Amino acid sequence: MAQPHVVILGGGFGGLTAARALAKAPVRVTLVDRRNHHLFQPLLYQVATAALNPSDIAYPIRAVLAKQANARVLLADARGIDPVRRVVTLDDGELAYDYLVVATGATHSYFGHDDWSTHAPGLKSIEDALEIRRRVFLAYEAAEREADPAAQAAWLRFVVVGAGPTGVELAGALGEIGLHTLAKDFRTIDPTRVEVLLVEGNPRVLGGFTPKLGTAAEASLGRRHVTVRCNTKVTAVDAGGVEVQLADGRRERIEARTVLWAAGVKASPLAASLGVPLDGAGRVKVEGDLSIPGHPEVFVVGDLAACAFDGKPVPGVCQGAIQGGRHAARMIRADLGSGKRAPFRYKDKGSLATIGRASAVAQIGARSHHGFFAWLLWWVIHIFYLIGFKNRFFVMLSWAWSWLTFQRGARLITGEVGALPAIHGIGADGARALPPAGETISPR
Amino acid sequence: MAQPHVVILGGGFGGLTAARALAKAPVRVTLVDRRNHHLFQPLLYQVATAALNPSDIAYPIRAVLAKQANARVLLADARGIDPVRRVVTLDDGELAYDYLVVATGATHSYFGHDDWSTHAPGLKSIEDALEIRRRVFLAYEAAEREADPAAQAAWLRFVVVGAGPTGVELAGALGEIGLHTLAKDFRTIDPTRVEVLLVEGNPRVLGGFTPKLGTAAEASLGRRHVTVRCNTKVTAVDAGGVEVQLADGRRERIEARTVLWAAGVKASPLAASLGVPLDGAGRVKVEGDLSIPGHPEVFVVGDLAACAFDGKPVPGVCQGAIQGGRHAARMIRADLGSGKRAPFRYKDKGSLATIGRASAVAQIGARSHHGFFAWLLWWVIHIFYLIGFKNRFFVMLSWAWSWLTFQRGARLITGEVGALPAIHGIGADGARALPPAGETISPR
Repeated sequence: MAQPHVVILGGGFGGLTAARALAKAPVRVTLVDRRNHHLFQPLLYQVATAALNPSDIAYPIRAVLAKQANARVLLADARGIDPVRRVVTLDDGELAYDYLVVATGATHSYFGHDDWSTHAPGLKSIEDALEIRRRVFLAYEAAEREADPAAQAAWLRFVVVGAGPTGVELAGALGEIGLHTLAKDFRTIDPTRVEVLLVEGNPRVLGGFTPKLGTAAEASLGRRHVTVRCNTKVTAVDAGGVEVQLADGRRERIEARTVLWAAGVKASPLAASLGVPLDGAGRVKVEGDLSIPGHPEVFVVGDLAACAFDGKPVPGVCQGAIQGGRHAARMIRADLGSGKRAPFRYKDKGSLATIGRASAVAQIGARSHHGFFAWLLWWVIHIFYLIGFKNRFFVMLSWAWSWLTFQRGARLITGEVGALPAIHGIGADGARALPPAGETISPR
Repeated sequence: MAQPHVVILGGGFGGLTAARALAKAPVRVTLVDRRNHHLFQPLLYQVATAALNPSDIAYPIRAVLAKQANARVLLADARGIDPVRRVVTLDDGELAYDYLVVATGATHSYFGHDDWSTHAPGLKSIEDALEIRRRVFLAYEAAEREADPAAQAAWLRFVVVGAGPTGVELAGALGEIGLHTLAKDFRTIDPTRVEVLLVEGNPRVLGGFTPKLGTAAEASLGRRHVTVRCNTKVTAVDAGGVEVQLADGRRERIEARTVLWAAGVKASPLAASLGVPLDGAGRVKVEGDLSIPGHPEVFVVGDLAACAFDGKPVPGVCQGAIQGGRHAARMIRADLGSGKRAPFRYKDKGSLATIGRASAVAQIGARSHHGFFAWLLWWVIHIFYLIGFKNRFFVMLSWAWSWLTFQRGARLITGEVGALPAIHGIGADGARALPPAGETISPR
C-alpha cells in the first residue's frame, strides 16, 4: 500500500518546517509553492534598502529538501482546496492528498483600497523589495535633476505607512540612506535633507512591544531624521503623496513621491475555499490542534491561521509559523503511529525590531532591552535562523561591511527608469552645483 | 572664465576611465549614463548562471566618482549629438560641451532579425542576465512537470548561439549547472541529462584565440556535456527552437526551449548622429587620436570605435575601452596644457576565456595556456579589475564557495513564472519519481 500523501502549500517558514519535520515519517511529501525559493522575510527590508542581495535571504526550496528522500517540490500556483474530495486545484491540474498543511501566509491589506498598491508598494516578495529599492534610489536621482524646491522636497520625502516592525525598520533604514550612504554622492542636492515620515493610525509605534520600547524606538528614529506621526490615518494615496486624517478629524496632504506600505493584514485567498469560518482579516479559525473544523486531516499554520494560546492571539511572526508547522507534522506522525492529537502550545521566544546601525529593541518575556545590546541580539538571532551556511556567512560579511563603511552595496537601479524631472534643474542650487556657465542646459 | 566642460557619454570601462583620468585636469566633467551603475561586463555571464549576485559585479557610478570634485553624474538617456552646435540631446533637454567622449558601446546583432531577441535573449545588462537566469532555472522546473519525453528533452536542451568568449563561458556554465549544481534537486528528471549545444557559424570556437586553444576549449566543453557545432549558421529562431544551416547547405531543426544569443556586434545608435563615416557594424571610423574627422573635440572610445593599431583592428574588449578612455583624457589634457596630440597605441595584454570549474584558456603575447593555470590567471585578473574593494572581496568568497561546493547561490527565479507544462506529467519517469498511487494528479 502506498504511503499517505502529505501536500504542503507554501514554502515559507511554516510549510518548510512541516516538510522537514516529516523527513522520517512514513509519508510522501509534496511541497507546492509558486516561487522556487524560500524567503527569509524578516530581512526583506534589507534588500529593499540595498544592504543585502536577494540571494542572501532567499534559497531554492529544492536545495533545502534535496536530501530529503520522501519529499518533492512542485512549482505551481494553488488556486483552491476541496476538503470533501481531498484535492488541491492548481493552475493546471489537481493534486490529491491524504493530509494537507496550508501555509500560504498573508499579505498587506490596503483596507479595501487595492488601487493604492500602485502608488504605495508593500514588502512581501523579492520583486516587491527590488521595486522599492528602485523607487528609493530613483527618487534621489530625480531630486538631483529637479529645479523647483517644492518638487525637489517631494522627491526627498519618504512616507512609510504603518509603524509595526517592518515599517519601523524600513523608516530607520531610509533615514540612514540619506544621512550616511548617499551623503557624498550628489552635487545639486544634499541627501541629508531627506525627510522620512512614519505614519501610524494607532497612538504609538511598535504596538506589539511595551510602551517603554516604543518610546525608545521613537527616539532612535528621530536621530535618523524620521518623523513619527501617530494617531494619523491615511485616507488617500496617489502618485504625488498621501492624504491623512489626524486624531481631531482634520485632514492634511503630504507631498511625497515615494510612499511605502507596511500596514494591515490580509490572509491568502486560499483560506476562503476551505469553507470554514474566517476572522475579519480572512484568516482561518482553526481548532486547538491547528486542524480545521470537521477535517482533522487539514491543518492551517502560520499567518493564515487565527488561533489563540493562553488567551492571547498567536502573532503572525516567524516563530508562530515555525512552531505551527512543527506541530502539524507532529499531529500527522501521531495519527500514523500510536500517538494522540494534542493542542498547539505557542512559546513566545520574544520580539525584536531593529531601527538601524547599532540600534534595536528587544522584548524577551518580562525583560526589555534597547540600543546596542538589543541590536547585537537581533543580529545573532537573524544570522542563526537564516537557512544554509552560505547565506549565514555572506550576510554576516555584508553587514560587517555595511557597518564599517556606512555603505550599502546593492544600490542598483534595475528595470525601467521611467520619467524623471526635466534636466533644466541642474545647477540651480548654486552652493553644491558645479559652475553652470559653459554647460548651458536648456529644456527642449 | 568657466573651465571647459567635458561631457562623457557612457559609464562603462571607457567612459569611467576617461572621467577618472580627468580628475586633476582643469575641466568640469559630466558623465551621462541611462543606468546608475557601472557594470563589470566580463562577469555578467556569472550572474546569468547564478554564481554571482548583480551587485557583486555592478557598482553605482556616483559612488565611483563621489570623491572626484570636478565630476558629476547625470542619469539620462542620450538620444543624439550635434557636433556643429556642440550639444548632446538627452531624453528631456540638451547638454552643451566643449569636449565630448562618446563611450556608449555596442550590443549583440541579430543580423537584421531583431524579432529573434524575444526568443533568444542576449547578455548585455543586469536585466538581461536576470532574464537568462530566470529562463534557465524555469526550464528545469518545466522539464520536471513534463510527461512527454520529447517535450522534456526540449526543456533540457540549451542552445547558445555564438562561440566567442561570452558564448563559450555561458555554454560551459550551463553544462556545469546540470552536472553539478542541480544534480540532486529533482525527482522526476535527471538534470545530468541536460544537453548544451554551442552553435557557431565559423569553422571553430574562440576565433580570436590560437587554433590550439580553440581545440583545448572544445575538449573542455565536451567534458561539460557541451556539444560544439561549428560551420553551422542560425537561419530562424522561435519559441520552440532554432533552425540551422550546415556547411553543405542542408537545414536542420533543433528543438530547444532555451536559446541564448552571444553573436554579432551592433554599435550604439548614437554613432549615426555624429554624421561621420561608420563601418559595417555601425562603429565610428575614428582618427588616429580617437577623435572624429573634422571635430578634434569629439572622441569615440571603446566598442563604439572602429580603429586599428599595428595593422590589426583593436578588439572590442575591456582593455581596448580602458586604454581608449585614458587616451582621450590625455588628449584633452594635452590640448589644455602645452602637450601635443598623439596617435592611440593599443597594448594587447592578452585574452582570456573561462570554460568552467578550473578550466580556462589564456593567450598572452606569443604564449598560450589552458587548464588550471589559465583558470587561476583568469581569476586573479578578474578579481583585480573589479571596481571597489567590497566587490573584489565578496566575489572572491562567492567563487571560493561555489568551487568548494559545486553550488550556485543566486539561483532564484524572480519575475513572472509564466506557463509551465501541465502537471499531469509528474511521476511519469518511474525510476526517479515517488510512488504515484494515492496522489492522483489529473489534468483538468
